[in-house]
Amino acid sequence: MHSHSQPHGDVAVPSAEPFAAAPDAGAGKHGHSTGDHSTHRSVADHRQAVRELLEPLLSRERTELLPLVQALGRGLAEDITAPLSLPPFPNSQMDGFAIRSGDVPDGGTSLRVAAPVPAGASPAPLEPGTAVPIMTGAMLPAGADAVVPIEQALPSVFPAAGEEAEVRLPATAAGTFVRAVGSDIAAGQQALAAGTCLGPAQLGLLAALGLPEVLVHKQLSVLLVTTGDEVVEPGEPLGDGKIYDANGTLLESALRQAGLAVTRAGISADSPEALRALLRSHTSAVDLIVSTGGVSKGAYEVVRQAMDGQDVTFGHVAMQPGGPQGLGRFDGVPLLAFPGNPVSCLVSFEMFLRPVLGELFGAPAPRPAVRARLAQPLSSPAGKHQVRRGSLQGDGTVRLQGGESSHLVQALAHSNALVHVPAGTAVLNEGAEVEVWML
Amino acid sequence: MHSHSQPHGDVAVPSAEPFAAAPDAGAGKHGHSTGDHSTHRSVADHRQAVRELLEPLLSRERTELLPLVQALGRGLAEDITAPLSLPPFPNSQMDGFAIRSGDVPDGGTSLRVAAPVPAGASPAPLEPGTAVPIMTGAMLPAGADAVVPIEQALPSVFPAAGEEAEVRLPATAAGTFVRAVGSDIAAGQQALAAGTCLGPAQLGLLAALGLPEVLVHKQLSVLLVTTGDEVVEPGEPLGDGKIYDANGTLLESALRQAGLAVTRAGISADSPEALRALLRSHTSAVDLIVSTGGVSKGAYEVVRQAMDGQDVTFGHVAMQPGGPQGLGRFDGVPLLAFPGNPVSCLVSFEMFLRPVLGELFGAPAPRPAVRARLAQPLSSPAGKHQVRRGSLQGDGTVRLQGGESSHLVQALAHSNALVHVPAGTAVLNEGAEVEVWML
Repeated sequence: MHSHSQPHGDVAVPSAEPFAAAPDAGAGKHGHSTGDHSTHRSVADHRQAVRELLEPLLSRERTELLPLVQALGRGLAEDITAPLSLPPFPNSQMDGFAIRSGDVPDGGTSLRVAAPVPAGASPAPLEPGTAVPIMTGAMLPAGADAVVPIEQALPSVFPAAGEEAEVRLPATAAGTFVRAVGSDIAAGQQALAAGTCLGPAQLGLLAALGLPEVLVHKQLSVLLVTTGDEVVEPGEPLGDGKIYDANGTLLESALRQAGLAVTRAGISADSPEALRALLRSHTSAVDLIVSTGGVSKGAYEVVRQAMDGQDVTFGHVAMQPGGPQGLGRFDGVPLLAFPGNPVSCLVSFEMFLRPVLGELFGAPAPRPAVRARLAQPLSSPAGKHQVRRGSLQGDGTVRLQGGESSHLVQALAHSNALVHVPAGTAVLNEGAEVEVWML
Repeated sequence: MHSHSQPHGDVAVPSAEPFAAAPDAGAGKHGHSTGDHSTHRSVADHRQAVRELLEPLLSRERTELLPLVQALGRGLAEDITAPLSLPPFPNSQMDGFAIRSGDVPDGGTSLRVAAPVPAGASPAPLEPGTAVPIMTGAMLPAGADAVVPIEQALPSVFPAAGEEAEVRLPATAAGTFVRAVGSDIAAGQQALAAGTCLGPAQLGLLAALGLPEVLVHKQLSVLLVTTGDEVVEPGEPLGDGKIYDANGTLLESALRQAGLAVTRAGISADSPEALRALLRSHTSAVDLIVSTGGVSKGAYEVVRQAMDGQDVTFGHVAMQPGGPQGLGRFDGVPLLAFPGNPVSCLVSFEMFLRPVLGELFGAPAPRPAVRARLAQPLSSPAGKHQVRRGSLQGDGTVRLQGGESSHLVQALAHSNALVHVPAGTAVLNEGAEVEVWML
């Protein structure tokens, strides 16, 4: 669906794919063959082209200082050096007694119990020949160099406050159950590198370092337009030959999840003039345009037509689904033109836009990539990188959901993974190992 | 850090762990042993207790109808049956010619080219002996039962509009390159099950089915309080023996990412009265309370003290880190009391609260669980389920980040995975297979 082309004999259709072959690609692959895929650009080359298109958006002006929790999911815009050590002071790893290890000979000894270490304050130095009750996380007194867990003490309870008491403790090596200053990170070390995606653990580290704010890349704004005379908004009546627009919802959700601010331009009819006008009513406010549909080799393709005179190229990437792609600038604004089928849209986003956003702006985080064994055989067009949808099972196998066809949105909705079959592979048997990206 | 206990001899400390053994657990495991872990509750039992605590929050009143994109990340509150078939009409999988397959004998034939199928409309029936130009996704005319790709036609171009033309086509089996009605999903089939987490693909399916809104579970609201006399907000000056509060930022971020609305109560001092007052100033507005710290066996534990007289139990789960846990109701509001170390907090969240939220309310989606081989050996307390932090490598191995100690927040920030070492395992060699959850 969403490939909503209509043959018009009076419309010029490019007879060859205009994506240039990569300069470093072998001539044998991209040279003079007239075969189907001779001028198809590789997935890596197209991803690189997307990267070059978006790279100018990377600048110091497009960063901002945010309170930690507001920075959740953003990419870090500078290296962070630890302003202090963690732990900032030597502290106890256990509830127990802090001692001078030299005070306890082999075979153990009894020590007088001193007043306990208070939490959140600097304790008095440990007098030789004494043991001091200390709780997990509390600062070791000066002089103490080991902690004996309460379970190893005799008696194995803390004396009541003010009570005179002795405790028998075993010999304990210096450093035992002591968290040394800087054992997690030392002041001056790099805590996080620019480009790190800030999740709970990374923000927690910044908080532990006492940093209340963090410099992150600003949210990019994207204009999303779906096209097609046959496409109808969900909730509207569905006429003959019409289909509901899945792409708008699918891609808006995916773009939002990736941290972008999305403006929906709605559905454009198959009129190049109308599409251009629709785009121009929004472009002043956005960093990027994403369109769906109208990029194929059909006789009538609205996005191709609307980009006439603009710095936008259309062509074919050696990928299935999602082969037809457009890329360039509309009135100077970066534009990615995805194909019209929902599965092709999502695969285009996952293969090109999402990883490039992560590389350039530190967010979103890359998809977890794992190796899995195929639960069933598959075939793939040998010249293309095939992206199948599947479900990773608990036993480490991946089960394909639906066939290779790009209209299978129900199958997509029951998948949790993308299964990669690189170019050059035509057949894989059950049990073959594949790379899988977890969605 | 955040374990901020202080021995006070005048405070009663429970001498045994009060978590009851699971009713179905063997007496030999949970009976009369006085060993360290004899009364420790299993991870599964504690997760079940968390589930039982939160289950009353599951009700029809706590659901709402939302426009699709606003439902992103929510859990579906009812089964969805497809109100129509996808595709809703038979359509072409290729740009080419729709034919009656019976019109073309073995060896091929020439057919008269009829007027093209318009996009987004119901085409006229296909006259016998004709071929009709059709683009991907367009409705097949009545009578047509196969599509011949344009590349297989002679000439392999569409004639100009209005031009009289013939095209030579090869014999093509019925059904070729035709997407049948309902081949993705048939009307009346279950499209999505209640409890599904709604991501881009699931929302895309609902859109394709024409549904503009969806019934989802309401967002839960949670009150987050961190405790400790020694804990200071990031950005404040750090006195002797003080540490910055990492837990507030870490858990607020994790809870938000899991789809909860978070209210921060700030940092409570180690006064039971102050903590109770702080909680009571917020509890009327929240579904759940999460606290950190003050749950251990130390001589002074503020959360334990503050819960005196409330229906809250404290005890030990056979897990490292994150063993000390509290659970119950404060003034009737469900409360989870996590331990005070940042790593323990995150592990508690990931092991207990997050999966239970997903099970009950359909969101967040479960962590992707994969099998990986250890890049290095490890040891684990045999009686406990150890949760290590690590980085999954491209080669399918997982590298541990930092040691087992729960204060290593820098190591946590450089991890992308939790590594599970189930109870009963004391040593694992390099190369041993482990279960890994991708963060």
